[in-house]
Amino acid sequence: MAPVPASHPQVAVTLGLLLSVLGLAAGGKVLVVPVDGSHWLSMREVLEGLKAKGHEVVVVAPEVSLYIKPSKSFIMKMYPVPFTQEEMDTTFQRTGQQVFEEGTFLERIVKTYEGVKNTSAIFLSTCEHLLYNKELIRYLEESKFDAVFTDPILPCGQILAEHLSVPSVFYLQLIPCGLEFEATQCPNPPSYVPRVFTDNTDRMNFLQRVKNVIFDIPNFFLCDVVFQPYSKLASEFLQRDATLLEILSHASIWLMKYDFVFEYPRPVMPNMVLIGGISCTQEKPLSKEFEAIVNASGEHGIVVFSLGSMVSDIPMKKAREIADALGSVPQTVLWRYTGKVPSNLPQNVKLVKWLPQNDLLAHPKTRAFITHGGSHGVYEGICNAVPMVLMPLFGDQMDNAKRVESRGAGLTLNILEMTSEDMSNALKTVINDKKYKENIKRLSELHLDRPIHPLDLAVHWVEFVMRHKGAPHLRPAAHDLNWIQYHSLDVIAFLLAVVLLSLFISFKCCMFCCRRCCFKKGRTSKPAKSKSH
Amino acid sequence: MAPVPASHPQVAVTLGLLLSVLGLAAGGKVLVVPVDGSHWLSMREVLEGLKAKGHEVVVVAPEVSLYIKPSKSFIMKMYPVPFTQEEMDTTFQRTGQQVFEEGTFLERIVKTYEGVKNTSAIFLSTCEHLLYNKELIRYLEESKFDAVFTDPILPCGQILAEHLSVPSVFYLQLIPCGLEFEATQCPNPPSYVPRVFTDNTDRMNFLQRVKNVIFDIPNFFLCDVVFQPYSKLASEFLQRDATLLEILSHASIWLMKYDFVFEYPRPVMPNMVLIGGISCTQEKPLSKEFEAIVNASGEHGIVVFSLGSMVSDIPMKKAREIADALGSVPQTVLWRYTGKVPSNLPQNVKLVKWLPQNDLLAHPKTRAFITHGGSHGVYEGICNAVPMVLMPLFGDQMDNAKRVESRGAGLTLNILEMTSEDMSNALKTVINDKKYKENIKRLSELHLDRPIHPLDLAVHWVEFVMRHKGAPHLRPAAHDLNWIQYHSLDVIAFLLAVVLLSLFISFKCCMFCCRRCCFKKGRTSKPAKSKSH
Repeated sequence: MAPVPASHPQVAVTLGLLLSVLGLAAGGKVLVVPVDGSHWLSMREVLEGLKAKGHEVVVVAPEVSLYIKPSKSFIMKMYPVPFTQEEMDTTFQRTGQQVFEEGTFLERIVKTYEGVKNTSAIFLSTCEHLLYNKELIRYLEESKFDAVFTDPILPCGQILAEHLSVPSVFYLQLIPCGLEFEATQCPNPPSYVPRVFTDNTDRMNFLQRVKNVIFDIPNFFLCDVVFQPYSKLASEFLQRDATLLEILSHASIWLMKYDFVFEYPRPVMPNMVLIGGISCTQEKPLSKEFEAIVNASGEHGIVVFSLGSMVSDIPMKKAREIADALGSVPQTVLWRYTGKVPSNLPQNVKLVKWLPQNDLLAHPKTRAFITHGGSHGVYEGICNAVPMVLMPLFGDQMDNAKRVESRGAGLTLNILEMTSEDMSNALKTVINDKKYKENIKRLSELHLDRPIHPLDLAVHWVEFVMRHKGAPHLRPAAHDLNWIQYHSLDVIAFLLAVVLLSLFISFKCCMFCCRRCCFKKGRTSKPAKSKSH
Repeated sequence: MAPVPASHPQVAVTLGLLLSVLGLAAGGKVLVVPVDGSHWLSMREVLEGLKAKGHEVVVVAPEVSLYIKPSKSFIMKMYPVPFTQEEMDTTFQRTGQQVFEEGTFLERIVKTYEGVKNTSAIFLSTCEHLLYNKELIRYLEESKFDAVFTDPILPCGQILAEHLSVPSVFYLQLIPCGLEFEATQCPNPPSYVPRVFTDNTDRMNFLQRVKNVIFDIPNFFLCDVVFQPYSKLASEFLQRDATLLEILSHASIWLMKYDFVFEYPRPVMPNMVLIGGISCTQEKPLSKEFEAIVNASGEHGIVVFSLGSMVSDIPMKKAREIADALGSVPQTVLWRYTGKVPSNLPQNVKLVKWLPQNDLLAHPKTRAFITHGGSHGVYEGICNAVPMVLMPLFGDQMDNAKRVESRGAGLTLNILEMTSEDMSNALKTVINDKKYKENIKRLSELHLDRPIHPLDLAVHWVEFVMRHKGAPHLRPAAHDLNWIQYHSLDVIAFLLAVVLLSLFISFKCCMFCCRRCCFKKGRTSKPAKSKSH
């Protein structure tokens, strides 16, 4: 049975263009509050889809950013921030480099904490300078938007949506502390839904389940600390008592960047729409430069190697080890790397400053994909059915790698501890052991067999929110209940009390009856006794 | 902003036909085990969709049935059953009539119980005669089906699927006792998910929540009794210990015939696909007879009145009351009614033995819909934006009516207790109070604004299961946990024990240290004391 091709976004986009040229589609107005980095790269495609359907897209972004640049697809409104491009680049580069820095466990923890603190400070400051930019806010107030489209990993967009009283659509992979579950009232049992950073799968033994529950505990108090500055900012800006959880819970639609081919099956809520693999579009033809390299690779084909946008430079010692490992396979390796060239670079390894990742992975000659395990890359690997060697660096990458490995579609390495031989073995295994190719092919077929392309789905739901001014019919009534009510603890206590009271009364009645009976007996038997005397 | 029309199933069907004519689509084989009555009527459309996509559809059905008849769209395999058409018709007609029979509450309960017992006996006997029909079972075993498509309200189809080791797709509204939640491991909190027969909405006060929990209690023990015969039959037929819950939990995909425009928002699982409104397709032109009646109705338009396929006859006294009420509105009323004509039938009421319900509801002259509140009819009312007067009779119809009423799109009447005036008032209100039309129009717009037509979605998922031999990647790991593990009670007990033990040991250590300190003090102070002496 041949799978029916899923409708391609290109069709919708072309139709949209046609409609907008003919003036048939009366467009809406979308305000986009993006998050910098890879978050922005994956969001951009939805914006192009919206523009193609005839909507006006306005992006507000800081003047200093990593990737957010003006484009023909949208109107860009920039606002000043109190740091320079250099300061920003340095902060983010440091985060990438820190992964490879040596030191004791405690030193590493302290460094990571400082890194997170610095980047968080930049994001918070950016948010403050957006919200307190009076001129920009006045423009936004006057613009009468139909929807706000934002990534809630930073809640600035939702604070703005509250202020403008405009319904919002969220676009996300996850929010730290599992806030996306709380804010959607989505059940999230720790018995089979693995927590971030635990390295657990959905099938856990007793000790793994204990670990899973323990990893949940910090969420109850540590996360409040993390999000407190935003709750404070929101309360000040909106001039009312506001918590982050309450604000996030007002989102109309949550576009979740995963599907259950990659993620372990678990409950979802009606206003959560799964759009995993949204970035994996039809490949474009390779440029002459890359085409030539791929064609020259012969029967062995190529390996694509990239550690993502955050890491382009690694310590020379590690680079030499990696180069050694790459030299041990007959494939041509295309390595995205901007650091100093290792002196032992083998002939089969081509260093490039940038590579068209999806188009290369889509090439039939590609045999393996060495990746840091960012969700964007992992989905491109799944979509194009390329077995992976995963070298997770930070954030959810460890968990992403675990998911791929647990499905037999790749192998995970610890980039700090691995030897050259470990890497060589892993690479050879995923290329030569047919099991890996078979597993990733099966995942790919499941992933691609969908009734509608995720990009069309995302555009549909943004338009839905614009057309209907939100989606209140998808908001569960659970939001109106407190913890005790939600779990029916008050009802259970009441029913228990009723049962116990009934038992008590019955018991007392019985006792009373018994006593009366005994008393009567006693009274009637006494004279009998006296008679017998 | 004009809503983009959702892709229509006709397109897919035409494409499928084209493909199958060209021999491009290699079709699969689907075994359909239907449930009689309205269940079959709504399932038939999916079968036509599958046939149009080039699949071979085989329906197994008893020789005696209410609606299941051969068609060009599928191969029909019939098997003998030990009752006649007359006996069957009588049993089902009696169920319809019972609603109107007078008597004390206890008498009515006993009659309802007997009615349910009789129809259950017919269904169980039908199932036994299917499973133990050796010739038919041999044919089915040899046929090598790719999927079983069945309504799990009667689990016969799934027992067969287990025997044939073929993945199954379920097509349902609900299963008694909320078994669909247990069998999918779908969380179903009684605090905001109203239980069947409670008359509750998703927003409940304390007493309503108590009622909701109380209505859950029978599920724990009564349902076992109801389903025991099927568990027994399954164990015997499959020659292994089998419970109904375990068998049902093996279904690959659950096509749920509702959406969250009608149903209250609540958690869903990855293998549940919502296809509410699947039966509401584009209207066909009316026949000359109906066209004439509708056109003659003038500016006041028409009212459509049907109590569904189960009830066509009602007691004369009630019929006269209803006729009186219908005479009080200026609209022409089309009443599906096969009983004796009430002598007071007003001029504006036309009795018909059958009516094209969806096509009439779709007519712009239709002002209201009087219905018993079957989910099929309610969705046709929502789809065509016609305000409703609901007169629920049995089953989930009370709950359906409550849902429509709670959204301000209709009014509910108790058909037994209502007076002629009550009905007249209700009808006039939904027609003349603009609020009802506005609310049903809003619901209709939300319901119809979907990225893909539910029929296409249903066909896609049946094909998905055929192509991939099931959908094991959508099966939650929760199925492998028992109740204690699922709720992490063992983990909580363990952690509590650890905490208590640590506290106890710390306490003991402290006590020990204190004692030693005191003792030392005592020892060192004593000589000092003696010195001073």
